[in-house]
Amino acid sequence: MLGSTHGTFTTDPRRAHVVACGELPRHAVHGTAATADDLDVSGRPLHSDVPDLDRFFRPESVAVIGSSDTEGRPNTGITRQLFAWAERVGARLHPVHPTRTSVFGTTCFPSVADLPEQVDLAVLLVADPLPVVEQLAEEKVRFAVAFASGFAETGEEGALAQARLAAAVQRSGMRLLGPNTNLNAFEHFREDLEGPAIALITQSGHQGRPVFALQELGVRLSHWAPTGNEADLETSDFLSYFAERPEVGVIAAYVEGLKDGRAFLLAADRAARRGVPVVAVKVGRTEAGARTAASHTGKLTGADAVVDAAMRQFGVIRVDGLDELQDTAALLARARPPRAEGVAVYSISGGTGAHFADLATEAGLTLPALGGAKQAELHQWIPEYLDVANPVDSGGHPVGDWRGRKIIDAILDDPQVGVLICPITGPFPPMSDQLAQDLVDAAERTDKLVCVVWGSPVGTEDAYRETLLGSSRVATFRTFANCITAVRAHLDHHRFTAHYRSPFDEAPRTPSPSFRKAQALMRPGQQLSEHAAKQLLRAYGIRVPREQLVTSAAAAVRAAGLVGYPVVMKASGAQLAHKTELGLVKVGLTSASQIRDAYRELTDIARYEGAELDGVLVCQMVERGVEMVVGVTHDTLFGPTVTVGLGGVLVEVLRDTAVRVPPFGDDQAQAMLSELRGRALLDGVRGGPPADVDALVEVVQRVQRMALELSGELSELDINPLMVLPRGQGAVALDALAVCR
Amino acid sequence: MLGSTHGTFTTDPRRAHVVACGELPRHAVHGTAATADDLDVSGRPLHSDVPDLDRFFRPESVAVIGSSDTEGRPNTGITRQLFAWAERVGARLHPVHPTRTSVFGTTCFPSVADLPEQVDLAVLLVADPLPVVEQLAEEKVRFAVAFASGFAETGEEGALAQARLAAAVQRSGMRLLGPNTNLNAFEHFREDLEGPAIALITQSGHQGRPVFALQELGVRLSHWAPTGNEADLETSDFLSYFAERPEVGVIAAYVEGLKDGRAFLLAADRAARRGVPVVAVKVGRTEAGARTAASHTGKLTGADAVVDAAMRQFGVIRVDGLDELQDTAALLARARPPRAEGVAVYSISGGTGAHFADLATEAGLTLPALGGAKQAELHQWIPEYLDVANPVDSGGHPVGDWRGRKIIDAILDDPQVGVLICPITGPFPPMSDQLAQDLVDAAERTDKLVCVVWGSPVGTEDAYRETLLGSSRVATFRTFANCITAVRAHLDHHRFTAHYRSPFDEAPRTPSPSFRKAQALMRPGQQLSEHAAKQLLRAYGIRVPREQLVTSAAAAVRAAGLVGYPVVMKASGAQLAHKTELGLVKVGLTSASQIRDAYRELTDIARYEGAELDGVLVCQMVERGVEMVVGVTHDTLFGPTVTVGLGGVLVEVLRDTAVRVPPFGDDQAQAMLSELRGRALLDGVRGGPPADVDALVEVVQRVQRMALELSGELSELDINPLMVLPRGQGAVALDALAVCR
Repeated sequence: MLGSTHGTFTTDPRRAHVVACGELPRHAVHGTAATADDLDVSGRPLHSDVPDLDRFFRPESVAVIGSSDTEGRPNTGITRQLFAWAERVGARLHPVHPTRTSVFGTTCFPSVADLPEQVDLAVLLVADPLPVVEQLAEEKVRFAVAFASGFAETGEEGALAQARLAAAVQRSGMRLLGPNTNLNAFEHFREDLEGPAIALITQSGHQGRPVFALQELGVRLSHWAPTGNEADLETSDFLSYFAERPEVGVIAAYVEGLKDGRAFLLAADRAARRGVPVVAVKVGRTEAGARTAASHTGKLTGADAVVDAAMRQFGVIRVDGLDELQDTAALLARARPPRAEGVAVYSISGGTGAHFADLATEAGLTLPALGGAKQAELHQWIPEYLDVANPVDSGGHPVGDWRGRKIIDAILDDPQVGVLICPITGPFPPMSDQLAQDLVDAAERTDKLVCVVWGSPVGTEDAYRETLLGSSRVATFRTFANCITAVRAHLDHHRFTAHYRSPFDEAPRTPSPSFRKAQALMRPGQQLSEHAAKQLLRAYGIRVPREQLVTSAAAAVRAAGLVGYPVVMKASGAQLAHKTELGLVKVGLTSASQIRDAYRELTDIARYEGAELDGVLVCQMVERGVEMVVGVTHDTLFGPTVTVGLGGVLVEVLRDTAVRVPPFGDDQAQAMLSELRGRALLDGVRGGPPADVDALVEVVQRVQRMALELSGELSELDINPLMVLPRGQGAVALDALAVCR
Repeated sequence: MLGSTHGTFTTDPRRAHVVACGELPRHAVHGTAATADDLDVSGRPLHSDVPDLDRFFRPESVAVIGSSDTEGRPNTGITRQLFAWAERVGARLHPVHPTRTSVFGTTCFPSVADLPEQVDLAVLLVADPLPVVEQLAEEKVRFAVAFASGFAETGEEGALAQARLAAAVQRSGMRLLGPNTNLNAFEHFREDLEGPAIALITQSGHQGRPVFALQELGVRLSHWAPTGNEADLETSDFLSYFAERPEVGVIAAYVEGLKDGRAFLLAADRAARRGVPVVAVKVGRTEAGARTAASHTGKLTGADAVVDAAMRQFGVIRVDGLDELQDTAALLARARPPRAEGVAVYSISGGTGAHFADLATEAGLTLPALGGAKQAELHQWIPEYLDVANPVDSGGHPVGDWRGRKIIDAILDDPQVGVLICPITGPFPPMSDQLAQDLVDAAERTDKLVCVVWGSPVGTEDAYRETLLGSSRVATFRTFANCITAVRAHLDHHRFTAHYRSPFDEAPRTPSPSFRKAQALMRPGQQLSEHAAKQLLRAYGIRVPREQLVTSAAAAVRAAGLVGYPVVMKASGAQLAHKTELGLVKVGLTSASQIRDAYRELTDIARYEGAELDGVLVCQMVERGVEMVVGVTHDTLFGPTVTVGLGGVLVEVLRDTAVRVPPFGDDQAQAMLSELRGRALLDGVRGGPPADVDALVEVVQRVQRMALELSGELSELDINPLMVLPRGQGAVALDALAVCR
């Protein structure tokens, strides 16, 4: 009954919870039910199963444990709501209470064991769900919802209680929603609305309320999963499930903390493969948000930049406000795939069009200039002196008569135009009522996206409430900003999914030949010397300068002869860092005498600083290139991550870096570079040649491989600088720092 | 009648229009009515007068030229509106039309000359206002409004017509609103609303409509100036006028293009001195916006970064959306000066509080942790396990009874708290109705700011429409983002005005002794040689390296002896740029033979490149410091501007610069540095010493002086690099480029 699956997936649906935690040591999952084929080389899963939640959302029979009909008790209100819901959806509801014989006129059973049938779902209104969970397991109940609070959200003691509950649920074979959740999944969903629906996932019930309320504005909602503390079922489970539901057009999520990074990526990957857009608020932009979110649901909030990157990698659209979540989700639910990326702006005032065009262009939307023939066509109905190139300014009057409809159709008919946006800043009924109706009618005749911004702050006008919100085709907004955000999300989503290739399909499953060599270099718990760190890089095919480790001045001179003048000399030792600041690097040495002097000086300084050396490095000098940094760090939620950044002052002062969570392909490695503010440095400045970006991408990918294969052994890696040479000449790691677990 | 003034200003109120244009040559205004005392050293005015617009907004008698009562004609609707308005405000209205004898039952006069009295205001509904303006002048009419379109907004020909109209208006002594404007100034303003009001200025009438509609949400509006094409009266005139009106609490402006940069700065300065906040949308973030805005009202849109800086200098709050304009203006109108900068967030759900805190903190608001005693007080009413440190999470139930009011008062009573924000994400009437009422009541008892975010997208709920919007004390928002933007604007505004010192009071009026020296160096229409440009800097007390200009190798060797080894040698010539790329700079020369070689090489390259040299510079070598750039450029709207930026790669790739419009004080010079992303470089990196920021500020100020004094002579100046030495050691201009007009 548990392991029941959806589609073609047949393994234990909860495996991901057990194995995918970022902190888990490598290969920790060997020996679970999962086969090696399901795991990448770091031991993290490459597949997740879709939990079958059909009977959770549409149970045929429900037990309400702790039900009540005594007025004034909180459980009475909940029980009443459940009776109403059961009647609406045709479910059989069985109250359970140790001392009551009937609740709201329905027979009440003293315990779960006394129920007249095996129920699909048990709603637990009791203060301590733990013993009930054990009883339910015996009765083979498939799903439970636990309302009780006082778990991980309250601190350490609560977290322990939650862990006990989670363990009991796992033993039981049952799936649990909660604790610290509520009835949101069983609210009254409007059945009369048309088109693809929003499926909603929120950790906090209250924060989902505005999205749910969209139904009052004519936007269809199919599901709401209020995940609460996620002792068992989590955001990712619902994400996967909703991605497979045919009625779902978009998944909207409000996330405070993720329980399992890899499970989230796999769920997002599923949505991306199926082309289902996911739009999410993720709390934790700041420390303040992260801290309070943790106290609210007791969930791990990953370092925000990593979460942000992970979402971007898998096409999850991140927004900040609940209003943006609503508006973006509503548009994504009703928009069909765009036939063109061009946006046409049409308004009854030149000022409105100019203002909208300014903000839209700044946000990255493209407003193509309409062609001469199209403009001539529009000027049949619009006075000659008005600008119709895009934005199209009708000047007002034409929208009030038969011409209005012609203008809209003519714009929509342009092959460059995929989206028509009409900002109606102020309502002026003789014009705006007709305009709204014409837009609604036009939207019925086209498969292009028609958006309206109703700018009046009042919002009680008929054209808004009746005409625009009454349409299931027009996407209506209240602000320019939210319209632009949503249209951008729509175009970005389709661009993303059109080119999406799942990185999980190509993720390495078995160690490369480099792995054995690398393992031999590892020194558990220690930082490697520069020389050893560079050998590690070489093991993974990353180029380092010609260099020799020497332990005498005479050997240094011999080494320089082999390496080739001029040389760089550096002290090398396991615990050394900040060598430049300590004076432990000498560059541009051109003679034997300089080398002997440098050797003496370096060893003197090291002695003075009390630094233990394994020798002095004599290295080839590499000058002409762009300094970058490439590194690996460990994220508590997602495991190893790969960072790339501009080197030197740029990384130190501006922290101009980009991060990705493995696995990722070359496209994402390229995208990382595009995110760098100093990206142009790689294209060549001051007449310099462009840098070898392909070689840089190759290094990033080799480092990713290393991060995955050495996930259990390597806690940190830092190539700084990686000198990226002119195009065609490669990239060389001039210094490296590696810390073993 | 014209030169009538408001307050203490007695000079021609339109002088600013005539003289302040950024493009104007220096001293062009000498000989106008303005005394030298009113001008800064660049010839730009230091004062502007406040036009007396009382009779414009509240005329006792009005003529309507071109009035009509024939159904179906556009002028009929306008005439009807004007009759209704005149009756409401008690003005006498006289229709004027060549052939009608009565309009809507009122005697109609054939021409302006036949009017029964001297009118305050003439509304021109005629297609060509030019001849009427001339008639009106003879009748000594004070104000006119011109509706006609077809002027600068339509292109070159229209611009010419507008210039003719503007000239006629100037000759007439009358003040004109328009052309291309409408009746917005004479709409129905609600008289029943309390508190300080919003005064609204919009170039486009349509774009002002949503702010005007705020009255339907209980926000008071006192004026609306739809400035249209601004042939005469412009945004700045209304800004000055509104800043002096006692009933105005905030000025909200929608600006497409500014007509006169200096006039705008002086008007914003007036508002800043009087502590009246100004919030503005300024179209033109992008080229697209700027282009369309120009075609819409035919106004100059300044380079956006300069406009942005100018607004910041004078405390104008710039926003992007009309919704932000509304929400920010509404809050600023009703908020009293803050007693503390701390923001307390109070909600009925921990998730809501965490989410709001996250976004508020990211936006720079401060949420102080409440003290232990305050938390204990709150825990009298809020369960112990809920977090009340700030955000305060009531858990829900306490807001529904007597405890809700206690909690709100206790938070407001905390001396750290200046602003209380209560996000009500989802309406739940048993709780949210009471909560809304308690907040409204509490706002009446306190002078602290109380804000509510009503998160429901529906907006027809009673608690929102009746309770919250019915309060003149609570500021109510629909989104987290707009609430945060408005609260930040409020705190920023009071912080700004508390420390505001008008730069016009301290702006230089007479040339410094440097000016004469500098004049002698100017070469009209030419770029100066590096050597001459450095002499210019020296004239203004900016340090340059010891250097000598030589014309032989032997002289170079002698010069090196005087300058001191090591030296830098550079080719110097009037038209030289990009010397480094051409190989025309040699650094680190340490011997006479190196100098002779360098001399030969530099002159060879110059000959090969065909560059004419005035010699070779032998310069002191300055190495240890932070490279900056400081420059002057000319903005078409504001005149000379001063830019500072990080040097080297940072300025070339990241364009990490900040700009200011003179005059500005040291505070703004410091603020420029804070705007630089690479600011931390000046504090010392990699263990280096902090840079001499005081010396950098001093250079910026000397460059500002130069920009003002040489406003007519110098079109461009670029110090690149300015080497800022370690603290206490000053700053040295290593290279400079100067272009004369």
